Amino acid sequence: MKNKIYRQELDKIAVYKPGRPIEEVKRLLGLKDVHKLASNEIANFPDYARKAVIEELKNINRYPQGDCFYLREILAKKLKVDKERLVFGNGSDEVIALALRALINKGDEVIVAYPTFLIYEIQAKVHSARVVRAPLKGLRYNLEEILSKINKRTKIIFIANPDNPTGTYLNQKEIEGFLKKVPANVLVYLDEAYFEFAPADFPKSINLLKKRKNIIVSRTFSKVYGLAGLRIGYGITSKELAGVLNRIRDPFNVNRFAQAAAITALKSDNFVKKVLLDTAREKKYLYRELDKAGLSFIKSATNFILIKFAKDAGKLSEYLLRRGIIIRELGGWGLKGFFRVTLGTHKENAKFVEALKKFLSQSGKVSGRTKK
Amino acid sequence: MKNKIYRQELDKIAVYKPGRPIEEVKRLLGLKDVHKLASNEIANFPDYARKAVIEELKNINRYPQGDCFYLREILAKKLKVDKERLVFGNGSDEVIALALRALINKGDEVIVAYPTFLIYEIQAKVHSARVVRAPLKGLRYNLEEILSKINKRTKIIFIANPDNPTGTYLNQKEIEGFLKKVPANVLVYLDEAYFEFAPADFPKSINLLKKRKNIIVSRTFSKVYGLAGLRIGYGITSKELAGVLNRIRDPFNVNRFAQAAAITALKSDNFVKKVLLDTAREKKYLYRELDKAGLSFIKSATNFILIKFAKDAGKLSEYLLRRGIIIRELGGWGLKGFFRVTLGTHKENAKFVEALKKFLSQSGKVSGRTKK
Repeated sequence: MKNKIYRQELDKIAVYKPGRPIEEVKRLLGLKDVHKLASNEIANFPDYARKAVIEELKNINRYPQGDCFYLREILAKKLKVDKERLVFGNGSDEVIALALRALINKGDEVIVAYPTFLIYEIQAKVHSARVVRAPLKGLRYNLEEILSKINKRTKIIFIANPDNPTGTYLNQKEIEGFLKKVPANVLVYLDEAYFEFAPADFPKSINLLKKRKNIIVSRTFSKVYGLAGLRIGYGITSKELAGVLNRIRDPFNVNRFAQAAAITALKSDNFVKKVLLDTAREKKYLYRELDKAGLSFIKSATNFILIKFAKDAGKLSEYLLRRGIIIRELGGWGLKGFFRVTLGTHKENAKFVEALKKFLSQSGKVSGRTKK
Repeated sequence: MKNKIYRQELDKIAVYKPGRPIEEVKRLLGLKDVHKLASNEIANFPDYARKAVIEELKNINRYPQGDCFYLREILAKKLKVDKERLVFGNGSDEVIALALRALINKGDEVIVAYPTFLIYEIQAKVHSARVVRAPLKGLRYNLEEILSKINKRTKIIFIANPDNPTGTYLNQKEIEGFLKKVPANVLVYLDEAYFEFAPADFPKSINLLKKRKNIIVSRTFSKVYGLAGLRIGYGITSKELAGVLNRIRDPFNVNRFAQAAAITALKSDNFVKKVLLDTAREKKYLYRELDKAGLSFIKSATNFILIKFAKDAGKLSEYLLRRGIIIRELGGWGLKGFFRVTLGTHKENAKFVEALKKFLSQSGKVSGRTKK
């Protein structure tokens, strides 16, 4: 019986295993040419940010603005919301953690889908919440199931929309109907990290949150804007809750370079358009190739695709890794036999397709081929 | 009676007011030339970091290494500690918050000096701890007083060494004697943000923590290395506790540019030497000028000086601000009539002295002059 200095319940928390970084794979496998299709980063390089970062160098020794003053002004204008409704985070991951910190007392309940983005559950446990899982239905969020889990102890419902790793989404009608049934004292956390990629019937969440105080929407500069390396995301909610989140966060939680690059990002509409066009084109290409290969997959509202691969997704993942292609095998996410591939450049996607086909042709009994 | 969605106890938490950023003062007062002597940033510009940041630009769209792999290797070697003893944070502010998150159950007690760095108390409250204050004695940490406050509910003792805002420090003998009296189930958090500036009898904390499991030392790249704008700090503790902190932090909490610049920082011994020399020289200069002006101050083990100014420190602060010099008035820290000035370049320090003298000569009855 060890006498541990920290809270013993933390021993039960799973470790989040991120997609392997390119540097790591190069190092471990001695490869020169590595392609990461594992962490839903965009393939387009955000050239627009270069100048902002270089200009910001002169202030590197000065603490950043704690309130993201200029970025806040510009983003509020762009979103047409009061600037007091905003909270910035060191990635939207931090906004998730802040929401939990603001609301959870030990033993309060948090409803998460299962499987879905892993951070909700991990951070809920870190914050001493009881995690209640609502299983997906046909690989989509099951809102009825979620509603049925609400009780007096429920504090937060996490909804990844579009969802990661399935790539499915809930539309305006579904979210609106759902919100009407959620009690006013339960916070609905809409994680919209991929919303820019979603179709036209995607919810207008900002209008919805103007009508209700129990919604927070978080978004990120890591995906469509291509700034994952800098760490910056934000939440939009009631002024009251945003005020609390701003009070409890670290005073300098968003670095200078992230603030400067994000300001430029918001002015880079052409870059975003290009990303969306390229994503749509490459998605079509991969759908076609996956069809040809006889693999079943989910049509995605994002920049990644969930693919069913029967039981040897792990083997495929290893096979590709040795060829310098990093994908995400999802056994650890509760999706055994599935993997997720992020859309890369066309060249990268073609390379992935080629290696995939080779693997399929070599692996004799093709257990992966289970066309839906 | 409002029905609030968040934890009501958070309403009692004070807001941390950072030193005003240069951009803000320029904006608000329409000044072109602003000097920030308010946030203990060094005056030397970290030119060494320029190349690392520019080189890292090519990876801006990729998530950073979650484990700070390369930085961890280099720092562990430099500190002569196992790399598993390290946890990196988005500034050492985050390490403070992580320690609280790992140890505190609601109602557990945390001992902080009063007054001292404000973040301990704010974050302790955010994490539902009961804060027990141990008043300073002669503007130094009172270790006997701290020991007398320990009880069964005590989980963490925060010690800023050297202290901010007083600039005083506890030496090897004091810390060693203190640690012997702290029970093994209480974590001693040694915040050494300014340790590089301290005299030779400063504690060898890393040796001390190798002997005990209940110590965490945190340090930062924001001060002597001049990287405050990037946000990076770290904790050194037992492998066991470091493991927990690494498990509960966000997976990508330290951005790419911070990791790259910190690696270069650790190889920039000449830069650090120059900073320490400049700091020592400017400290002497300011001591002399403050003496001449008849102001009483504390000899500092850091790159800032705490100055006693009777009752009109607020007026002085406003006066200097209108002249483009930002200092830190400490009424809000529980040090009414005191202010803190960070050492700037010699030119900046001279400008500060000149303005200070002018204020003193103008303000008729010189209430500030209270030579100790």
